Amino acid sequence: MPKGVPESIPNDGLTTRQRRNQPVLAVNTGPGKGKSTAAFGMALRAWNAGLSVAVFQFVKSAKWKVGEENALLALGRVHEETGQGAPVQWHKMGQGWSWIRRSDDAEQDHAEAARAGWTEIARRIAAAEHDFYVLDEFTYPLHWGWIDVDEVVAALRERPGGQHVVITGRYAPEVLVEAADLVTEMTKIKHPMDAGRKGQKGIEW
Amino acid sequence: MPKGVPESIPNDGLTTRQRRNQPVLAVNTGPGKGKSTAAFGMALRAWNAGLSVAVFQFVKSAKWKVGEENALLALGRVHEETGQGAPVQWHKMGQGWSWIRRSDDAEQDHAEAARAGWTEIARRIAAAEHDFYVLDEFTYPLHWGWIDVDEVVAALRERPGGQHVVITGRYAPEVLVEAADLVTEMTKIKHPMDAGRKGQKGIEW
Repeated sequence: MPKGVPESIPNDGLTTRQRRNQPVLAVNTGPGKGKSTAAFGMALRAWNAGLSVAVFQFVKSAKWKVGEENALLALGRVHEETGQGAPVQWHKMGQGWSWIRRSDDAEQDHAEAARAGWTEIARRIAAAEHDFYVLDEFTYPLHWGWIDVDEVVAALRERPGGQHVVITGRYAPEVLVEAADLVTEMTKIKHPMDAGRKGQKGIEW
Repeated sequence: MPKGVPESIPNDGLTTRQRRNQPVLAVNTGPGKGKSTAAFGMALRAWNAGLSVAVFQFVKSAKWKVGEENALLALGRVHEETGQGAPVQWHKMGQGWSWIRRSDDAEQDHAEAARAGWTEIARRIAAAEHDFYVLDEFTYPLHWGWIDVDEVVAALRERPGGQHVVITGRYAPEVLVEAADLVTEMTKIKHPMDAGRKGQKGIEW
C-alpha cells in the first residue's frame, strides 16, 4: 500500500516544498454514502495540522449531521482551551446562515439562501479567512442552476494562499470535476435501507 | 434528498424501535480515497451519540493517520473532562499492539501481529467492550489469508448487543461483503498524485 509516492515527477519547475504547499480542491460525489462523512474525516486531519476549518452546509434540514457538527465544534473548543489543533466554524443554511440576521429567514427562498451562502464564502475565500473549507452538498445548488458554476470555478481557481476546499454532493458539474485536483465517487453496493431497516443512532445521524 | 426513508417495510415482525437498534456492519472498499476517512467521520457521529469508539489499525506504518488519531483521542479527552460524547481508544499494529508488551515487537511477523490483533478484537466483541469499532485496513490480512475470513464473519454475526463495526480497505472478501449491512465502494476519478503532486500536510496526513 504505498502512499504519497507520485507516479511521475512533473517538469513544472517547482521544488518539492512548493509542490507540498499547493492547495487542494477535492470533490466527493456519486450516489453512495460517505461523501460528507469523508469530508469531515479530512477535516480531522486538517484540524490536527493546525489548519482552521470552516464547514458550510447547503441543506435546508440539517438534522442529519449534528453528530459531526458537535464533534468538530468540540475540537474547536479544544483548540481554544489548549492550543491543540485549530479553530473550527460550522455554518448551515438550514436555520438561515449565521451571519444573516433576518427575522424572515424561515420565509427566505432556498435559491436565494444558497446564493447568499456562496457570496459569503467567495468573500471569505478571496480574503483567505480559513485554511480548510467543507462546502457540504454544494453540488445541488450548482446542479439546479441556483449558483453559477463558472463563477464558482473562477473564484476557486483564483483563490489566494494555501486554502483547501472540499465540495460534496451528487451530480457534481463536469466543469467543477475538471477544475478539481482530487475527485472521488462513492458508489452504493449495499445499504440497510434497501432491506427496510431504520436509520441507526450513532450511525446515520 | 430524502434520507432515512426505507424503500420498503420488511415483514420481519420487528418494531421500528427494534429495527433502530440493529447493529450495523459496514464495509468501505474500492480503490479510491475516503475509505478510512469516511470511517473516522462515522466515528464522529458515534462519539456524539455516546457510543464508545475503538479504532484498530491493521497497518505496519501508521504515520499517515496521525491527524485522525490525534483528533479522535482529543475527543476522548473531551469526554473524560466534560462528559460530552464517549470514550475513544486507538490501537495500531504499526508499533506493536498496545496490549502486547514484548521487547521483540519490531521482529514480530506481520501475519502473526495481524492475527494477534484479530484475537483481541474478537475477545472484545464477544465481551461487548465497545459500541463502535473501526477495523482499519482489516481487509488486507483477510485478503492475504493471514486471518480466516469465515471465522471473522462468524464472530461478527454472533456479536452480542448493539455493537457497530466498520471495516475498511481494498479487496473486501465476497463473504464479508455478503455479511455486511452497508457496503460502499470508493472509486478514484482523479487524484493529484497522478499529476506528480506531493501529499499535502493537513490533506494527506
